[in-house]
Amino acid sequence: MSQHTLPALSELEQYLHSKTDDIDFSVLKSSLAAAAAAPDRPDNDDILDHILPDAPNELRILLIKARNSLRQSILSAVHAPEKSQDRLNSLRQEMHSQTIDGFIVPLNDEFHGEAAPAASERLKWLTGFTGSAGMATVLADKAAIFVDGRYTLQVRQEVNTDLFTPRHVSDEPLSNWLNDNMKPGQSLAYDPWLHTESNINMLSKMAKQLEISLVAVDKNPIDEIWTDRPPEPLALVVPHSDVFSGETSAAKRERIAALLIETGQNASVHTLPDVNAWLLNLRGADLPSTPFALGFSILHKDSTVDLYMPTEKLSADLIPHLGNAVRVHDRQEFESGLKAMSGKRVQIDPAVTSQWIVSQLENAGAHITRADDPCMLPKATKNKTEIDGTRTAHIRDGAAITKFLHWLSVETPSGDIDELTAERKLRSFRELGDNFKDLSFSTISGAGPNGAIVHYRATPESNRKLEVGNLYLVDSGGQYLDGTTDITRTVAIGTPTDEMKERFTLVLKGHIALAQATFPTGTSGSQLDALARLPLWSRGLDYDHGTGHGVGSYLSVHEGPQRISKMPSTVALQPGMILSNEPGYYKTGEYGIRIENLVTVVPSPRINGAERDVMAFETLTFAPIDQNAIDIDLLDSSEKDWLNSYHQSVWDKISPLVDGDVKDWLKTVTAAL
Amino acid sequence: MSQHTLPALSELEQYLHSKTDDIDFSVLKSSLAAAAAAPDRPDNDDILDHILPDAPNELRILLIKARNSLRQSILSAVHAPEKSQDRLNSLRQEMHSQTIDGFIVPLNDEFHGEAAPAASERLKWLTGFTGSAGMATVLADKAAIFVDGRYTLQVRQEVNTDLFTPRHVSDEPLSNWLNDNMKPGQSLAYDPWLHTESNINMLSKMAKQLEISLVAVDKNPIDEIWTDRPPEPLALVVPHSDVFSGETSAAKRERIAALLIETGQNASVHTLPDVNAWLLNLRGADLPSTPFALGFSILHKDSTVDLYMPTEKLSADLIPHLGNAVRVHDRQEFESGLKAMSGKRVQIDPAVTSQWIVSQLENAGAHITRADDPCMLPKATKNKTEIDGTRTAHIRDGAAITKFLHWLSVETPSGDIDELTAERKLRSFRELGDNFKDLSFSTISGAGPNGAIVHYRATPESNRKLEVGNLYLVDSGGQYLDGTTDITRTVAIGTPTDEMKERFTLVLKGHIALAQATFPTGTSGSQLDALARLPLWSRGLDYDHGTGHGVGSYLSVHEGPQRISKMPSTVALQPGMILSNEPGYYKTGEYGIRIENLVTVVPSPRINGAERDVMAFETLTFAPIDQNAIDIDLLDSSEKDWLNSYHQSVWDKISPLVDGDVKDWLKTVTAAL
Repeated sequence: MSQHTLPALSELEQYLHSKTDDIDFSVLKSSLAAAAAAPDRPDNDDILDHILPDAPNELRILLIKARNSLRQSILSAVHAPEKSQDRLNSLRQEMHSQTIDGFIVPLNDEFHGEAAPAASERLKWLTGFTGSAGMATVLADKAAIFVDGRYTLQVRQEVNTDLFTPRHVSDEPLSNWLNDNMKPGQSLAYDPWLHTESNINMLSKMAKQLEISLVAVDKNPIDEIWTDRPPEPLALVVPHSDVFSGETSAAKRERIAALLIETGQNASVHTLPDVNAWLLNLRGADLPSTPFALGFSILHKDSTVDLYMPTEKLSADLIPHLGNAVRVHDRQEFESGLKAMSGKRVQIDPAVTSQWIVSQLENAGAHITRADDPCMLPKATKNKTEIDGTRTAHIRDGAAITKFLHWLSVETPSGDIDELTAERKLRSFRELGDNFKDLSFSTISGAGPNGAIVHYRATPESNRKLEVGNLYLVDSGGQYLDGTTDITRTVAIGTPTDEMKERFTLVLKGHIALAQATFPTGTSGSQLDALARLPLWSRGLDYDHGTGHGVGSYLSVHEGPQRISKMPSTVALQPGMILSNEPGYYKTGEYGIRIENLVTVVPSPRINGAERDVMAFETLTFAPIDQNAIDIDLLDSSEKDWLNSYHQSVWDKISPLVDGDVKDWLKTVTAAL
Repeated sequence: MSQHTLPALSELEQYLHSKTDDIDFSVLKSSLAAAAAAPDRPDNDDILDHILPDAPNELRILLIKARNSLRQSILSAVHAPEKSQDRLNSLRQEMHSQTIDGFIVPLNDEFHGEAAPAASERLKWLTGFTGSAGMATVLADKAAIFVDGRYTLQVRQEVNTDLFTPRHVSDEPLSNWLNDNMKPGQSLAYDPWLHTESNINMLSKMAKQLEISLVAVDKNPIDEIWTDRPPEPLALVVPHSDVFSGETSAAKRERIAALLIETGQNASVHTLPDVNAWLLNLRGADLPSTPFALGFSILHKDSTVDLYMPTEKLSADLIPHLGNAVRVHDRQEFESGLKAMSGKRVQIDPAVTSQWIVSQLENAGAHITRADDPCMLPKATKNKTEIDGTRTAHIRDGAAITKFLHWLSVETPSGDIDELTAERKLRSFRELGDNFKDLSFSTISGAGPNGAIVHYRATPESNRKLEVGNLYLVDSGGQYLDGTTDITRTVAIGTPTDEMKERFTLVLKGHIALAQATFPTGTSGSQLDALARLPLWSRGLDYDHGTGHGVGSYLSVHEGPQRISKMPSTVALQPGMILSNEPGYYKTGEYGIRIENLVTVVPSPRINGAERDVMAFETLTFAPIDQNAIDIDLLDSSEKDWLNSYHQSVWDKISPLVDGDVKDWLKTVTAAL
């Protein structure tokens, strides 16, 4: 249904027509469409009060209805796999008229973050693919879609494989496919906004090897043919109080500017949404589950910032919060902002900066310095206020989880509870907590075999009952003003099998080994990853995901540069970093196990005779680990001590926040082994 | 003393003059000088029989004397720190006449291996520095020498710091020094033979940033002024029998050629001495402790090879061993060999290939493919013959170590044994073993505080007694035709202190953790490194070297690409790889501890319920670990089991090779805890 025929819109228009002539409905409609292009979040009604202040309740309800209808309409227009053939035909016509032989369609947007708004879902629009990583390449007579191991099945369910040949991104890489399907001298085009400089460097090498020419398009051919492309999302951008950030934006800007001065830079360009949110102490609602406001910034060595972000998104109190040293411009002015860098030394991070930005700087005659974004490490190493905040947020979150686990213990014996019901119930417990803003990611609520799907998301079609004899895996988290949480618990419904207990205990041993580790300054997460896997490895088992990811402070639940994984890393773990500790085990078609707590890196208490500064992990997450699923014989005494001491802390911290049956239950499940 | 006045040479000349007119003495003299430029190795007299076959014993003795005199003369002429000022002056004059403002003097030669022959010891010649890693840079009025943390003290002892400012290579890098001392527009020159392409890429970036020009010299200015530069080493190159290699060179060449064909290459260039030795099943004696013959090779996709190596070095049986598919050329022909690659696809490894070679190929219009040397992994993953050979070599080596450790137990209570005596004694035990060719590196024989110097080498000046109450650390290895060994044992002389026992046991726990690890396919050594460190880390201790390096099969005792270290690596451990397992602990000024066995990667025995292919380490080294130095209370039951089972194997394998007191002693020291 096209937007102009939506009943909720007509209803709104009629209502306004009957009340006033002061409102230009076409302007209101485009604001509402932009608001609808922002995700469904608890705080995204705030923008309506910003668009139309002081609306009576009656009108506000109509506005919300109209916005929701528009959102439905946007979502269904973007994800329409049945139109792939038509869309692909149009794209090829456009490519032909732009005289390009091939075009790359990545999944990401120009901010190169983890998620992208509807207007940037070009890959989904073209192919119908809904995964979180992928890329298509279109030639005049062939097209392919490249996905990683997580999505090799899903891509075949979602995408018309007559149109797009599915390929495994590393086993069957783009270069091989291009080698088979392109001729030397042909042109492969890309949108320079959608590729980082690092990515273009790789593609250039490949193109050189294949003797094809790699060309940047001026206008993305998809945008040229995407007639009902959604607007940029319109969601309110608000201050993030110093009470939670622990450091003013002015202090942060001075700190980073000092780093720039140290290496002789005049300025640095920042495109990552979490970097800009951290640097300027602001938060938005442009994307699901992460409080991001999309925009670009240029930080100058005098510690002032030019911020390129639509001014209509900014809440009234944001402007004074930003102060005079932050100049806000519309995004169209970014180009001239870059041009003004002529002759200056400008630092960019090639791994996250669009080739378009690099080209603008080069054309302007700026001297480019390539380095990691200087905000990344300061952002990752939280200050005392942030760590204290995250500690209290985790206790509230742990209380919600405890209530939920108790609820499960009461309700699941009936066999009537299903994944979606459980997921909703968990959310309702979280929503009761102070400072709760949103979930920090889509809850993974997987019963039995669904628990074995690492990135599972329950749908009405996949929804399973939590049956007795099964394991239930629930991975979830909250966004609180004072911290971001992420926790996984695996619960035995009824009595688990011996094998389930063995595997659960191996995963727990790995979790404990990592939680107990001490390590010297300079140690990276990749050096510690094996500690969490060794118990599984010793029995010929493993899990195919990282052991730990960085977590932000009321920011992204996935942040770098810290991580604990098999992937080599030179990023040293530092005090104040927050990471997950989440080993797992997955038996396809049967069950999944994951035990996840967040931890923060702390200087280790002084050890007698120590010669090096060593660090350790402080566990932040407090919720019971299911002792029914443990094979006690597999734990050594140090592991039992850890578990008992952990459960004692869970009791100490969570029991004051619960009462009655929940408290009684908590006493039982946190009792020493 | 200049060479023409050496008494031994005159004696030889007189002898020959009295016997025959058939020998051109000046030709003989240059051959002898070239033989003298090869290192002092047990097998390096063989070349004399090659130079002058069937010489009577009387003459042979004179030849050896003359060669030894020449060697002394070469060594003292190369290492003459008192001449540094004159040499630096001459270099600056030469730089001036070549119109270059700066010149880089690296330590390595054009083969980029671990050691270099006398003719390539330009850094030592210029500065007097004798360490194993370093680099100098000379400007018109300033010069600096850059070394790593191991050599910051040594460089000040060896080098005139008025001439060369010592700098820490990573804390005070070249770029900073150049930034302070060169002006934009000046030229920094380098010898393209002595820098790999990767290194030049790095230097180019630096030069661009500093706005100086990086230029390749046509003639190394040091070689232009080094009037008594030693000749290239002349040492016999011999076949390495298939009995030891387990695979003919023809089969290897076909295997690698197939890899080249797979990616469409016409040829690959190989410069690493161990790669060429492996590929062609040949061994030489150009360098100390490693059986290398310096040369270059081009492998063609038809599996033939052009080998660039002086033909006068080749033993009579090498030519038939190489066969028709290997064409031997003098090194001067290498340039035309590269030019002949015009229009072809040629693979090189930028990390080990001289910029000179890359430039020749580029100028010839070859299409260069950059990739890891395709021989590296096949060489590193030893075949059954090589592994069986190394197993038996290790048992002979273990017997030598056992005899030595017994000798220590008898002799050290007197307090009269010193490091150099012990080192010689150990060598004499090894020399008794079958297939012994040489030590695999200079023995580290360190008593008390000398044991704490990781790369210690005993000299008459540093030589210490093995005193009661001290620890003695001995790290040594042998080159046998059937395998290369490397073992470290730390022995308590008398009764160790509680602290020594605690630290020894922590190191042992790390050694055992690594020895016992099982890990899935795809695991790299850097993922396992922490296992060996965790017991030390837990007490705030660590060691500043890698945990394990690759080891060759009668090749280098240090080989890549496998390693176990903190340094990130993506090289998966694979069956057949040989590595060391050598955690340590060093207390400066007091003592050092290291426990080193070699291990090989093996597929793990099938585990019940296993879902992944897992691998494990098989320990290759068999010699007692000093139980007097262990604090038994710190070992858990699995660690005790490992140690008892290891000592049982030591007894089973070594006891048949020893008898009398040694056997009785071995019984005692391998008894179960």
